[in-house]
This record gives sequence, structure tokens and C-alpha cells, in this order.
Amino acid sequence: MKQLKVGILGFGTVGTGVVRIFQNNSELISTRLGGELVLHRIADRRPDREREVHVAPELLTTSCEEVVSHPEIDLVIELIGGYEPARSLVLEALKNGKHVVTANKALLALHGDELYNAARDAGVELLFEAAVGGGIPVISPIKESLCANRFSEVAGIMNGTCNYILTRMTQEGADYAEVLKDAQDKGYAEADPTFDVGGIDAAHKLAILIRLCFGTRIDFDDIYVEGISEVTALDIEFARQFGYTIKLLAIGKEDNGCVEARVHPTMLPNNEPLAKVDGVFNAVALEGDFLGPALLHGQGAGMDATASAVMGDVMSVARDVFSGSIRRVAPMSYPPETVVDLPVKKMTDLRCPFYLRFTTDDKPNVLAQIAHILGEHHISIASMNQPERHAENAVPIVILTHEASEDSVVEALMEIDKLDVVREKSRFIRIEGSLA
Amino acid sequence: MKQLKVGILGFGTVGTGVVRIFQNNSELISTRLGGELVLHRIADRRPDREREVHVAPELLTTSCEEVVSHPEIDLVIELIGGYEPARSLVLEALKNGKHVVTANKALLALHGDELYNAARDAGVELLFEAAVGGGIPVISPIKESLCANRFSEVAGIMNGTCNYILTRMTQEGADYAEVLKDAQDKGYAEADPTFDVGGIDAAHKLAILIRLCFGTRIDFDDIYVEGISEVTALDIEFARQFGYTIKLLAIGKEDNGCVEARVHPTMLPNNEPLAKVDGVFNAVALEGDFLGPALLHGQGAGMDATASAVMGDVMSVARDVFSGSIRRVAPMSYPPETVVDLPVKKMTDLRCPFYLRFTTDDKPNVLAQIAHILGEHHISIASMNQPERHAENAVPIVILTHEASEDSVVEALMEIDKLDVVREKSRFIRIEGSLA
Repeated sequence: MKQLKVGILGFGTVGTGVVRIFQNNSELISTRLGGELVLHRIADRRPDREREVHVAPELLTTSCEEVVSHPEIDLVIELIGGYEPARSLVLEALKNGKHVVTANKALLALHGDELYNAARDAGVELLFEAAVGGGIPVISPIKESLCANRFSEVAGIMNGTCNYILTRMTQEGADYAEVLKDAQDKGYAEADPTFDVGGIDAAHKLAILIRLCFGTRIDFDDIYVEGISEVTALDIEFARQFGYTIKLLAIGKEDNGCVEARVHPTMLPNNEPLAKVDGVFNAVALEGDFLGPALLHGQGAGMDATASAVMGDVMSVARDVFSGSIRRVAPMSYPPETVVDLPVKKMTDLRCPFYLRFTTDDKPNVLAQIAHILGEHHISIASMNQPERHAENAVPIVILTHEASEDSVVEALMEIDKLDVVREKSRFIRIEGSLA
Repeated sequence: MKQLKVGILGFGTVGTGVVRIFQNNSELISTRLGGELVLHRIADRRPDREREVHVAPELLTTSCEEVVSHPEIDLVIELIGGYEPARSLVLEALKNGKHVVTANKALLALHGDELYNAARDAGVELLFEAAVGGGIPVISPIKESLCANRFSEVAGIMNGTCNYILTRMTQEGADYAEVLKDAQDKGYAEADPTFDVGGIDAAHKLAILIRLCFGTRIDFDDIYVEGISEVTALDIEFARQFGYTIKLLAIGKEDNGCVEARVHPTMLPNNEPLAKVDGVFNAVALEGDFLGPALLHGQGAGMDATASAVMGDVMSVARDVFSGSIRRVAPMSYPPETVVDLPVKKMTDLRCPFYLRFTTDDKPNVLAQIAHILGEHHISIASMNQPERHAENAVPIVILTHEASEDSVVEALMEIDKLDVVREKSRFIRIEGSLA
């Protein structure tokens, strides 16, 4: 029977899931593959730590070097995470002619080019389904089932921690800090949650999807990133009154050779499929010229779901190896030599409807002053809400605008914030119409 | 540049979409493939009929025979639909060494084995992503990204006509006949809607998914099929009051070597992702042992979405041909020689919670009589609702049961229907707990 020998770097949560699949489903996998996957070595700094699986001691090593250079190993699964030593080890494995499967979105988002080129030079595969959306099939459908489409949009809820926090804020009317604390206590958020709540993790995933969908290189620094820490219970409540839900979306669009790449809290109409994705679930919405809208929904993280995606990639490499078709599909859907450099739209050039919230004195003529400044900046008002009085006579005024340019909104808000009657810095949230 | 020459059988709606992809996206497709797809012949009985695309007259023929036997054609797309002549033409094409891509779920559900075997004997490919869920990637993820999973469940909303009708009944409180008539006027339902509203189309798709997910042959006649024509506005309203939505679900499960295969109106808790899939959209929910729940959502039909799936398959064959890896993946995920024959659970053995609706006289003690009979059949009541009086003193009594066996429910209802106080045949609808 044909065999593919596998080595694993990193025996933490996802590594444990991968080993469990080897232990539970190897017969099923061999049946479907017509060949065998053999787990040959697992490298981890702490081979003895407590885990949910038991493996034969001779499989374990503390040396990642041993795995990436082992003459019998055909494929290396990288589950260390972060930039170094993951980057050097993956490059070393590729150079040694090993195929690589990784779940490391940070590495791909920042060093993707270097890795794709190394894989091409070595004539080996580099797959990363688990890097976006955990167990949800996203990368592979973009590269295969949907590849007859010109994509105009890829957007989604790509960070479970943020979605869990926003969902609880929405359902309980609770404040950000309070829910974050509880999420940390329950293990749904890291002790240092910056990467998640700051939107960086979602932006890493977006960088990968933009390259896949639009065939363009994207500099990670060109992605606009705004996290959820400024979202208030008040904004969520006003959104609800207008029929909207606030989600942290990662949004990629391509139009006439120009790319939008942004991660920020977004107001979505309640009937949008993405608005209904709650809790730790992730979902990716795609829009293709023939496909129309589609939504792929599931568990975006976790030991087992992520391991499912990793092993799907391992089986894909095995099928290529067994059928003699290595690099049958380009790692990034487009062959490296055809990848272009599309310009990224500046946020100031963005046009969309906006939610604006002002905190003002409860005096006559305040709304008129605000409306006047908005009008001068060609921002037209779609609807308005001025609810009951708040603390110390401060009154919130909430406005939904028709489509407007972000730079005019920013300028108008700066001017409005100079008014005597305005008590706090005014807030805006971008609105997306019909993402999927 | 490498080339794959394609012939099409049937130049109707989906055929027009496929031709439009050839015309609009050929450059994109060549870039992604590193090779070219060439449209070589299109066979249709009525080459001259009005269409949304123009093609060179020399591409058109009235002879399907010419396409399936043409020495230059590598791949045949079958878009005729139905059993004959589609079956004979596909067999002929396979025998002539052509790869085949089809959207014909009826053909695959009833003659799948014959076709898979013919493809295997000829050493060619047979792909059918468009047969289930239109443009949504379903078949390919099951065979590839998710193939490290043992699936326990595949269920979904697989017929857009039914979902459109049920959605409108739910949103408008309208009756079945009224909405069906309007759907027919608007072109969302066929003049003869039997295949759709009778559940047969959904059952065809379920037959395909069960084989893919569980690796078992399934006789189409073993699938229980119940359509939506008996669903009333009253049931939908009661479901709503209990926090449920009624959907036509196709449900496949595998447990301990026994398969459930059933299509019927189903009550789903409103917070289930499938309960939120509205209008003509389709969605397929999968449950894998490592994946957990996932939902794939999109346009289940239509010219462009279906063409997107067809062309994804064509590109997959092209990649296999170009890289010399024909039949890299078995058409049905499991190699033919490993497919088994799992027994199908009888509906009488089904256990699930039930919604029961009785129409009774408005007299004392009626509920006691009904509850007594249910108790005798070991059916325990979870909740009950007896709303306002209806016509001629007839009172509906609605009961949700805990999990019960279907045969005991059927027997209890037969006994209850013999009571003097019962005015109409009692109704039941099966409830699914947490499908995804």
C-alpha cells in the first residue's frame, strides 16, 4: 500500500487533535485514499506535558530540526504558530523537499511570498486550509470548486473571540470590558487578547483570502485594522433599533483593479446571513460573478475543527503524491508568475453608508447645526434618532447616512466636535449593505 | 499551452450559463489552470431558439451522438436532465473515453452505480458538483477538505421552490395553495411542481450525499419522501409560537452502521442555522467527528450559480488531465470496491420529538382523553398549547412531545382519531433538535 510519512512540529492543542485523527480515523482515511498516512515523528519542546492522547514515546522528540531534515518524512505539519522559529523551520522543510501543511495565518500573512516561492523552487506543496476559518472549507473551495468565478468580494467573521464578545454584548446589553473579562475567565479569550480584539488575527486571515481571491500580493500594512474595544453597548442598542447588528468584519473587495482591505466593526442589516452568525462561530461570505453570494459557516477554531482542516490538506497532498501530480493546483490559486500588485484603496476614499453618534447638550438647534455641517460635506441623512435624555442633560443623536465618502465624514466630525454643544468625541461605524 | 476540449449536451438555461463563463472568464480560467478550456461542440434539439448568448454557428449541432463520439472532445457536459436519453448518452460518452460532468441528480440518484462503474471501467472521471446545492461547494468539500472526518449527519434545505413557498407562508401567514399559485406565476415553481413540492428532487440530492458521506449504496426507494403540500398556515403559526420554523429538510444520518434517509417537513428551533435559510436559498449542514457542525449556504439553482459548479468540475478534470492524475479522487469519495450496503432504518423505528395537532370538540376532558392515549403509548408531553376557539366550536390542541418512536405516535394518533370528540385527522410533524 502507498504510504505518506508525516512529521509534526508542535504538540499543543491542534497537534493533539491531529494525533487523535490519526488514532481514530486511520482506517477510514486509508479507505478513502487508497493509501496510508503514517505518523512518524512529533517534535515538541515539552514532550512530557499532559495531553488528551497517548503516543508511543519513540515518536516524540524535542528536536524540530530532526523532523524537518528526517530522510523518511515526506510531509511536515507546522503547528508552532508565530513567526520564528516557525518561518525558519518551514523554509528548511521546504528546502529539504518536504511538503508542508500549516495553520499559521500570521506567518502566511507576513511571509507568504517567501514561503510560496520556496515551495515552488523545491517543487513541493504548501497547504493551509486551517489558517482561515478553522474547520470550515474556505481555501480549497476558492481554489477549486469556485475557481471559474471572478470574485468581487470576500468578507467574513473570522475571529471567534470577537464574535463571542459582540454576541454577548448584543444579547445581554453588557459592556465590552465586562464581557471580555468573563470571556477571559472562561478561556474564550487570551490573557493578552490584543491580537484577537484588536482585529489583527482577522486581518491575517483577510490577507490570505485577498491574495487567493484576487490574485494580488498584499502588504499586510496596507490592510486597515480597527478592533472592537471602542464598540459600546449604546451603539449596539441603537443599531438594533435601526434593524442592524454590529459584527467585526474582515472585508476584501476588488473593483476595476483596485482592492479594498479592511477589518473593522461593521453594522449589518439583520437579514444578512453574516448578521446571524453568533457566538464563537466563524463564517466567510464570497461573491463570485457566476456563483452569486455564498456563505461558508462553522467552527473557526478549536482542537478538533482545526485538526480536521489540517488533515484534509495532508490527504490532499497524499492524493497528489500517490497519483503523481504534485503541485496540481497552485498554493495561492494563481500561479506565482501571474500574481499582480493591485493598488489598495485608501480608507479616506472609501464610500459607504455610515452610522454617526453625537453626544450633545440638550438645547434647541443642536440638530440643525450638525445637519448643516453634514450637508456642507455632502453627507445626506437617511434616518435620525434622538432618544431619551442621558446623564447630565447630555443627549445622544444618532444618524444613519446615505453613501458618503469616509474623508468627508471624518472632516465633518472634526468640525462638529468643535461645536460648543458637543460633549464627547463623535463616533462613526461603517455600514455594509448586502455582503452575501 | 495545454488544452482540454469540451462538448455540451443541452443548450438550455444552465448550458447558456456555461457558455457565458467560457465567453467571459476564459482568460481568468487559463491563468488559474495554466492551460486552456476549448468549447468544441454544443448539441441541442433546437439550435436556433432564442438565448442570452451568441455562439458561432459551427459550434452547434442537433446531434448528441456527434458530441459523445467526437474524436477531439475530451470532456462532455451533460445538461439534458432526466433519465433518457441522458443515461444512454452519458454511458456512451464514458465508453468512448470522455470525462463527464453532469448536473443530473435524478440520473445519479437512480442510475449512479451503473455510471460510476462505467467511468471506472473506462478510466475516466465523472463529476457532479452541480447536482446538489447549485453553486454551493458541497460535493467537493465532502470528498476533499473534510475527508478526514467520519460523518454522522448530512442534512439540508435542498429544494429552492419548497423553501421559497415555506418562507412566504411563514412571513405572510399565507396558505400553501395560494403561495404555490403565485410562485408558479412568477416562475419560481414549475407548472407541474410535483418533483419539487413532493420532495422527490430533494430526495435525489440526499441519495447522492448519503453515498458520499457514508460510503454506502442506497436504493432510492428506501428514502422516505414526504412533500410540503400538507403543511398549513396554522401549523406554521403554532410552530412560531413554540419558537420553531418549519422547513423541508432532507436528512441523512449514520449511526452504528445503520442509515436514516428521509425527506419531510421538519420543525427546527429558530436558532438553528438551517432555520434561518430563507427564500430560494439552499444550505447543507454537515456533522463530522472532528469538524463538528458546518453549514454551506448559497444559491441552490439558477443559470449562473449552477454553471459555476459545472465549470468548477470541468476545471478539476482539466487539472487532473494536465497533471496526469486522472481519477485522483474517487467520484463518490470512497473507491467503488469499498462501498458497502448499510441497512436503512424504517420510519416506524425513528425516534425524535414530535409536534402533534388535534382538532377536537370544545368540551371538558378532551385533553385528558388524548393525554391518556399518548401515555399508554409511552409518549410523554413536553409542552401543550390550546389556543382560542376556531370554527364551529372546533378547538385545536397542539402538543410537543419528548423523544418518542414514530410507530407509537402513528398508533396513538389512529386511536385518538377514533375518539368521538376528534373532528379531523390528527397531524404530526417531526422535530429535529440540533442539526448544525
